[in-house]
Amino acid sequence: MAEIEIGMGKSGRRGYSLDEVTIVPSRRTRDADDVDLSWQIDAYQFDVPVIAAAQDGVTSPDSAVELSRLGAVGALHLEGLWCRYADPEKFLAEICDLSPDHAGERLRAIYEAPVDPELIGARIAQIREAGATVCVAVTPARTESLLPHIIKAEPDLLVIQGTVTSAEHVADGAHDPLDLKHLVRRLEVPVIVGGCASYQAALHLMRTGAAGVLVGIGSGTTSTTGTVLGVGNPQATAIADARSARMRHLDETGVYVHVIADGGMTTGGDIAKAIVCGADAVMLGAPLARATDAPGGGAVWSMTAAHRTLPRGLLEHVEPVGTLEQVLFGPSDRADGRSNLMGALRKTMAVTGHGTVKDMQKADLAVVAHPNGIQS
Amino acid sequence: MAEIEIGMGKSGRRGYSLDEVTIVPSRRTRDADDVDLSWQIDAYQFDVPVIAAAQDGVTSPDSAVELSRLGAVGALHLEGLWCRYADPEKFLAEICDLSPDHAGERLRAIYEAPVDPELIGARIAQIREAGATVCVAVTPARTESLLPHIIKAEPDLLVIQGTVTSAEHVADGAHDPLDLKHLVRRLEVPVIVGGCASYQAALHLMRTGAAGVLVGIGSGTTSTTGTVLGVGNPQATAIADARSARMRHLDETGVYVHVIADGGMTTGGDIAKAIVCGADAVMLGAPLARATDAPGGGAVWSMTAAHRTLPRGLLEHVEPVGTLEQVLFGPSDRADGRSNLMGALRKTMAVTGHGTVKDMQKADLAVVAHPNGIQS
Amino acid sequence: MAEIEIGMGKSGRRGYSLDEVTIVPSRRTRDADDVDLSWQIDAYQFDVPVIAAAQDGVTSPDSAVELSRLGAVGALHLEGLWCRYADPEKFLAEICDLSPDHAGERLRAIYEAPVDPELIGARIAQIREAGATVCVAVTPARTESLLPHIIKAEPDLLVIQGTVTSAEHVADGAHDPLDLKHLVRRLEVPVIVGGCASYQAALHLMRTGAAGVLVGIGSGTTSTTGTVLGVGNPQATAIADARSARMRHLDETGVYVHVIADGGMTTGGDIAKAIVCGADAVMLGAPLARATDAPGGGAVWSMTAAHRTLPRGLLEHVEPVGTLEQVLFGPSDRADGRSNLMGALRKTMAVTGHGTVKDMQKADLAVVAHPNGIQS
Amino acid sequence: MAEIEIGMGKSGRRGYSLDEVTIVPSRRTRDADDVDLSWQIDAYQFDVPVIAAAQDGVTSPDSAVELSRLGAVGALHLEGLWCRYADPEKFLAEICDLSPDHAGERLRAIYEAPVDPELIGARIAQIREAGATVCVAVTPARTESLLPHIIKAEPDLLVIQGTVTSAEHVADGAHDPLDLKHLVRRLEVPVIVGGCASYQAALHLMRTGAAGVLVGIGSGTTSTTGTVLGVGNPQATAIADARSARMRHLDETGVYVHVIADGGMTTGGDIAKAIVCGADAVMLGAPLARATDAPGGGAVWSMTAAHRTLPRGLLEHVEPVGTLEQVLFGPSDRADGRSNLMGALRKTMAVTGHGTVKDMQKADLAVVAHPNGIQS
Repeated sequence: MAEIEIGMGKSGRRGYSLDEVTIVPSRRTRDADDVDLSWQIDAYQFDVPVIAAAQDGVTSPDSAVELSRLGAVGALHLEGLWCRYADPEKFLAEICDLSPDHAGERLRAIYEAPVDPELIGARIAQIREAGATVCVAVTPARTESLLPHIIKAEPDLLVIQGTVTSAEHVADGAHDPLDLKHLVRRLEVPVIVGGCASYQAALHLMRTGAAGVLVGIGSGTTSTTGTVLGVGNPQATAIADARSARMRHLDETGVYVHVIADGGMTTGGDIAKAIVCGADAVMLGAPLARATDAPGGGAVWSMTAAHRTLPRGLLEHVEPVGTLEQVLFGPSDRADGRSNLMGALRKTMAVTGHGTVKDMQKADLAVVAHPNGIQS
Repeated sequence: MAEIEIGMGKSGRRGYSLDEVTIVPSRRTRDADDVDLSWQIDAYQFDVPVIAAAQDGVTSPDSAVELSRLGAVGALHLEGLWCRYADPEKFLAEICDLSPDHAGERLRAIYEAPVDPELIGARIAQIREAGATVCVAVTPARTESLLPHIIKAEPDLLVIQGTVTSAEHVADGAHDPLDLKHLVRRLEVPVIVGGCASYQAALHLMRTGAAGVLVGIGSGTTSTTGTVLGVGNPQATAIADARSARMRHLDETGVYVHVIADGGMTTGGDIAKAIVCGADAVMLGAPLARATDAPGGGAVWSMTAAHRTLPRGLLEHVEPVGTLEQVLFGPSDRADGRSNLMGALRKTMAVTGHGTVKDMQKADLAVVAHPNGIQS
Repeated sequence: MAEIEIGMGKSGRRGYSLDEVTIVPSRRTRDADDVDLSWQIDAYQFDVPVIAAAQDGVTSPDSAVELSRLGAVGALHLEGLWCRYADPEKFLAEICDLSPDHAGERLRAIYEAPVDPELIGARIAQIREAGATVCVAVTPARTESLLPHIIKAEPDLLVIQGTVTSAEHVADGAHDPLDLKHLVRRLEVPVIVGGCASYQAALHLMRTGAAGVLVGIGSGTTSTTGTVLGVGNPQATAIADARSARMRHLDETGVYVHVIADGGMTTGGDIAKAIVCGADAVMLGAPLARATDAPGGGAVWSMTAAHRTLPRGLLEHVEPVGTLEQVLFGPSDRADGRSNLMGALRKTMAVTGHGTVKDMQKADLAVVAHPNGIQS
Repeated sequence: MAEIEIGMGKSGRRGYSLDEVTIVPSRRTRDADDVDLSWQIDAYQFDVPVIAAAQDGVTSPDSAVELSRLGAVGALHLEGLWCRYADPEKFLAEICDLSPDHAGERLRAIYEAPVDPELIGARIAQIREAGATVCVAVTPARTESLLPHIIKAEPDLLVIQGTVTSAEHVADGAHDPLDLKHLVRRLEVPVIVGGCASYQAALHLMRTGAAGVLVGIGSGTTSTTGTVLGVGNPQATAIADARSARMRHLDETGVYVHVIADGGMTTGGDIAKAIVCGADAVMLGAPLARATDAPGGGAVWSMTAAHRTLPRGLLEHVEPVGTLEQVLFGPSDRADGRSNLMGALRKTMAVTGHGTVKDMQKADLAVVAHPNGIQS
């Protein structure tokens, strides 16, 4: 770990974003047909290593079913509109029409409705009955209170996700903190937990018994965490640090915990870079919100945008690029890399000669000065 | 101190701005309620580690009282309009309406009125009588002449502040230079002195007996010192260097001198970064000028903008974001981090697991390429 | 090879673009008249080290003849419009009028016409009969099927060029991969093969027996490979790595394989930088498309822009700057370096005191932060 | 000399521009009144270390006289309009009205008039008779032919200046190259020679017997040398390298050769940075063209903009900021540092505690990422 002296009394490591790296093809190439994108976590097998983000503009019960049909998986946020309202469609339509500059107030009002435990069960059942893999998400703060309802509904995968989530949460005596170390081992459902952005944080989350760790703080398109809180770590470095934690944890326990890159990816090339840095899979928000059949109708936001006293997210409108199927598998009629994400990933693995996602993690990277790929 | 060879005959150290660092959460988090933001310098205790800048658009007798009520402190500039005019309100209103492009000439005219020693006493009394902590500022050049009037008025804290202030000022025989080394020890009022931006300068200012040192040269929003004079040092490095000077001075003398970061901060995240670099407290100008009850009515400028032969500052208009209370404590209805600065600082300390400002100085930093937080 | 730690689990080398280097004159200068720009590959001698890119907007049978007359050489793409249509002029004219934002669909349609083997023979004959050097290009994927027709037509030089081309292509059992190692040695025509962007890739391509290797992935003006696929390597580093491969291959075999920089150059200064990095010659697309007698009429695009499922290129319109002769040899009436490219290269070699292209490879480079040459 | 590996086959040093450095005040300050800006080269003493550039928009016989009165010196180009035309005023007025985008053709026509040897004598006499220091400039290419006329007219200082000038110029047998080594020692007039931008080039120019060396290639405001030719070296590095050459030459010979930074400076802060890098004086073009009494009427261009086949310069219009006296000595009514350049330099020396230009060369520098001074 090479330290940079920021000043005589403080040092830090250099953090690199995905924009600052590029994948360097080497001596071998491969047919794109000969590339396998499949991903397995716990007992669940997926055709592509993609989780749709637990955001109301990205994952609804319907889009979760469609994503499952396409070989991916969508994480339904159990504190989102689908578990606050029986019929959230009108609110989704309203949000889609909000001006980004003045969305905060209305978002706060819409998200003030309480989470309805009954709806948790109903939404999970709805997805399962359609034959899809059921992946649901909660925040650490609500995990304790919502857990009984979740367990009862028997989802396949549980995501426990906050802006920053740690295995050791300190609280004053007044209330019990969430103890992830005991909680995760107690559950039968495999748990994915995050976000985190450092070796130590990832390692300790892995030690909770989680099946996967979400890597990324403040890296989402709509997040202003970096500006408001000053926290984060550029995504290439965060993933590569988590990869190192995964190796150590595997050495210590024999258990392989998945590193799931969350945020900061726009194109299939970005997904490929995240994998080369060490990701086993990716969680995508804005890239999937561009689908014409995404629930947000082109709007993308996270619940932190609706925070009552310290909002840390924006509402953004993204340009539609086709159906979820086209976004993932093309055909693409545009050269900006925003559709056929999996076709691009497949092609990148082909031109670097790698046949599986795991093998792709060995590709070479170069560090570059110019964002957005290569200049001259 | 790693030196970079600029050319074969000259080397220098790399200086980092606050935009070039980000705070990396680690394995521990904490409840925001369990975070203590208080700050004590000499005998004075504050709820939050914030000094409002000695600028006429930021600190007036009234705003100083309000800031004190909120747990912060405001530094009234004794060479500002409040000590040049009995009724400066009309000038403040006029300045607020000036076009930034042509403000210089009018500012020069308005600031040509002499400082009235009577008003010094009156302003200090006015603040004290309102029950607020009295903090006043002078420039080194005027310190000698104004000091008798200041001492007589008995402020609680005295700020001696110039663009660049050193403990060793060389002057020709014609007039006596200000000898800070003798002056500061002679005074009973605790003194905060600056600006400086290097280890040596900070160390020597500490050795004058000052209670605090202001760190930052050319880092303020409206300053053009970097362009006009070519001097400065990016703020993250300047603070971390001063932190090292504080350690050395503490080791030599047993006296802890406070490092106060001055300028270059816009959000609570920026304040958090300054603290992690080593600051004990921050001096804020433009961020507080955004308050609807700031005396400048949204205009912010420093007196160097009114310099007769070599102006080194601009008049800028900032967008109002709420009352001083909202700027400091929210609630915020915007996601750009410009209000609820202390709520953001509290949250940042929570997500990095630190309970006090002093403890927060131990948090991890990463060095990043992209300004304004994290990109991907 | 200095590795940078991207994160604890992944490292990479720093890659530099041509914009990040500048040529530093040293103690010796030379008359521009005393500079020799000639280049010889295999039995073919050229006055200037320039190959016009195998793009339909750049090289047609007519422009290939004109380029030959001027001492350069043009590579006619045998999968381009001239071998798909007997009279492609109307399609070229139509493409020239397409709006860049909506060109993809029409390009796909135009390029759906099959390649006509008869036309391959006719185009090669047309160029040869005009007395020009015949250089033709194919993609690796079509090489096997088109080769009999190409060999029969007896071109002087054969370019086998894909976005990423390797000496070891892995394919499943269903079809035979192109085995460059056997193919190139079997051919009597000298082969130039690429693109590649790393030491290993270049070395293995050299070992196929190629006369030249094209260096550059995603570096062309219209390429979005870096964005869509995330692959590439900045051009200065890619060329310098290939130079090292050339040295090793020369040491192992005694055979000098030419390094041909492809893409990322706009001015004669850029060409000079590529040479100093190690290039023996350059392949130019957009810079030559600026000629009033270029076949694209000012439009420039590569065939990847017409890809059916994953387009990775744009159509761009470039400003005309004069005839091909003026672009290469001036006189220039503009100070932006876009015409008189060879005059500029000659002048750069003069002010750095180098008499031949090979000698110019020894010039000094500085690494700079600011793109587009020198700032202050 | 720390080398950076650009690629495996080529390395280079990092070059820094003046925008990438900032002057860091240290423990000592000084009264601005107590600062001496004087400069002496050979027998000539100047109040300020400033040479006005040998450009027709900057130095005319009249402005040379005014600059001399102000304590600076102007270099009249003997190949400029004043020695091509008896009455060049109308051409200057016409150039001032040219549109930058289409100035090249007209400039070429205006500069096609031959240099008139008679006018050389007349212009030199005109300046000398006004009591000013006479400094004149020629290009290396014309030095041999114009020298008899120059010597006869007895200027005080002679500048031999080309884009890149070396002590060893190689030419074919057809004509004799300019041999600076013999020429300079043969002359009685002190010679300033350049430009150069490296240690070796500066050292060898010093060994010709020159009194001063101009440092800067492609660093002028209107120069496109960096783009067109790809040559240059960022100015901070070029100056610091020349400083090292000065030390070596002084050690070898006991002779102190002046390093004169040419180009790349806009403000007094930039001039101060150049001095800290190692400059003894500066040559200024665009900053002085901003004077209302500059001969170009606000237009600035170099003769390379009028090159017949390979123009490497632009015509630019700069905003007027006051008389030459105001530009140099103020008072300034603007905060952008473009007037009162010497007042700013004096202030910078004061806040860093340095009393003379020579002493100022010892000040500390920091390397920064953000151009235009300091960000946060």
